[in-house]
Amino acid sequence: VKKFEQLGLIGCGMMGGSFALAAKRVGLVKRVVGYSKSPSKTEKAKQSGVIDIAVGSALQAMVGSDLVLIAVPVSATADIFKAIQFGFNKHALVMDVGSTKADVVRSVIKIFGEMPPNFIPAHPIAGKERGGIEEADVDLYKGLRVILTPTEQTDTESLKLAELVWQALGMKVAHMSAKEHDQIFAAVSHMPHLLAFAYMNSVIGQPKSQTFLEMAGPGFRDFTRIAAGDPEVWRDIFLANRNEILKQSGSMLHSLSQLEYAIRQGDTTGLKDMITNASRVRDAWQLQSLAKKSDA
Amino acid sequence: VKKFEQLGLIGCGMMGGSFALAAKRVGLVKRVVGYSKSPSKTEKAKQSGVIDIAVGSALQAMVGSDLVLIAVPVSATADIFKAIQFGFNKHALVMDVGSTKADVVRSVIKIFGEMPPNFIPAHPIAGKERGGIEEADVDLYKGLRVILTPTEQTDTESLKLAELVWQALGMKVAHMSAKEHDQIFAAVSHMPHLLAFAYMNSVIGQPKSQTFLEMAGPGFRDFTRIAAGDPEVWRDIFLANRNEILKQSGSMLHSLSQLEYAIRQGDTTGLKDMITNASRVRDAWQLQSLAKKSDA
Repeated sequence: VKKFEQLGLIGCGMMGGSFALAAKRVGLVKRVVGYSKSPSKTEKAKQSGVIDIAVGSALQAMVGSDLVLIAVPVSATADIFKAIQFGFNKHALVMDVGSTKADVVRSVIKIFGEMPPNFIPAHPIAGKERGGIEEADVDLYKGLRVILTPTEQTDTESLKLAELVWQALGMKVAHMSAKEHDQIFAAVSHMPHLLAFAYMNSVIGQPKSQTFLEMAGPGFRDFTRIAAGDPEVWRDIFLANRNEILKQSGSMLHSLSQLEYAIRQGDTTGLKDMITNASRVRDAWQLQSLAKKSDA
Repeated sequence: VKKFEQLGLIGCGMMGGSFALAAKRVGLVKRVVGYSKSPSKTEKAKQSGVIDIAVGSALQAMVGSDLVLIAVPVSATADIFKAIQFGFNKHALVMDVGSTKADVVRSVIKIFGEMPPNFIPAHPIAGKERGGIEEADVDLYKGLRVILTPTEQTDTESLKLAELVWQALGMKVAHMSAKEHDQIFAAVSHMPHLLAFAYMNSVIGQPKSQTFLEMAGPGFRDFTRIAAGDPEVWRDIFLANRNEILKQSGSMLHSLSQLEYAIRQGDTTGLKDMITNASRVRDAWQLQSLAKKSDA
């Protein structure tokens, strides 16, 4: 794997910090130059040894770096692209880590006129409920998957290099279009989060909520784990991918109303069939997913 | 704790088998007489040592027992009460383990004319995704909670004895009315199951479901774990507690539509506030719940 002279880290939080730590450990980068919007965060990243040099702007983190990672909240991505557009380094490999991709591609095209061939939109499927540099973890990405969403403008060599970078961090790489990415993650990630938030709010909003929460057990615990997610992160994702999420919500409401109808009608056969359908697929998924893990 | 001469086990499955194993281990009962609707299941329970004597009817399991546990699917409870009504043992402590309680109280009153004072409706909050005597587990109940739902007819001594029985198995005992029980569990258990089943069916019903399932990660895994639940068990619960569940579903749809409205309108503040509300309470719940466990 190619060694990079300098990683320019734009956004010194949990995602970016973990990337810097892992890249240094495997010898992928020699030096890390970091920038965060808040100078105190940049300083903290330097003090904790996650970055080597703190700079005062996104552009400074890009200039002189041969690898650039943009790891800011989804809602801040467009501002970062505006800040770096006039000094954009065409010889660096530039990537982001946003959980939605069509909006990133859209805003880059809007700002740059076209996709820079050396910018590879990336979504490493990794994270924690809490953000911040304190949560940076050298093993965050290990064994997990990253999705790259190149466009027709993407340079083949940059794409290959991006793959090698994530593989060096122990990740499995998949490619797809930004649109397909956003469809898939609306279905398997954004929708469960939306439901978990809505369900928690439904419980909290009732007069007996204290008793409800006291009596809640392990089913509730696992079902609502993702409801502890970071509010800003999830607000940004819901807004950035709203069309796909609203489609998923429509499909979910249809499934729910079918179950409700069978319950109201006392349709024992139909109700059992619908539950069996869900239960079988969930069981099979667990087995496949465990089999995959033991392969890796 | 009082020692019982004979446990009459009506229903030799995972729940009843686990009770028999645990009761014998702590020396609560000397002998277990068991009955299951299918003679081959009763025989299997005997061969595996969970019961000592196999009998051919629910009534035979009741006669001569000073402790009786009815551990059959919720939908079979009424039939069992009919089968035992004319030989009902007034000197035994009789309990069930059903996940819903108002329907049990209703069908007992319908069949017996009133609640027998020595029948204590019970719901141990324990279980596994799979049923059957093979899944009987001596530690199933340990450290968990059981809800008793006595009525005005309930005999105080029988209730006290019931408490001691579950405590001897390592459980924490709570009392409430059957109605309150069904409200609480509709909110914290039945509704999450209904949502998890509906969500799985929504994912499965879409053309790209294979790709969706391949890309699903740890959030999906935890959120859908309960969707692998036993179809007959959950069909029965949904039907037995339909009114409370449909109320919860109404509340959930209201919360979901508020989130959706904020997403559609691009209401960043409102959306963040709603997510923050959910996230804070879920976080606090986790901390309290861990604190409680370390107390136990």
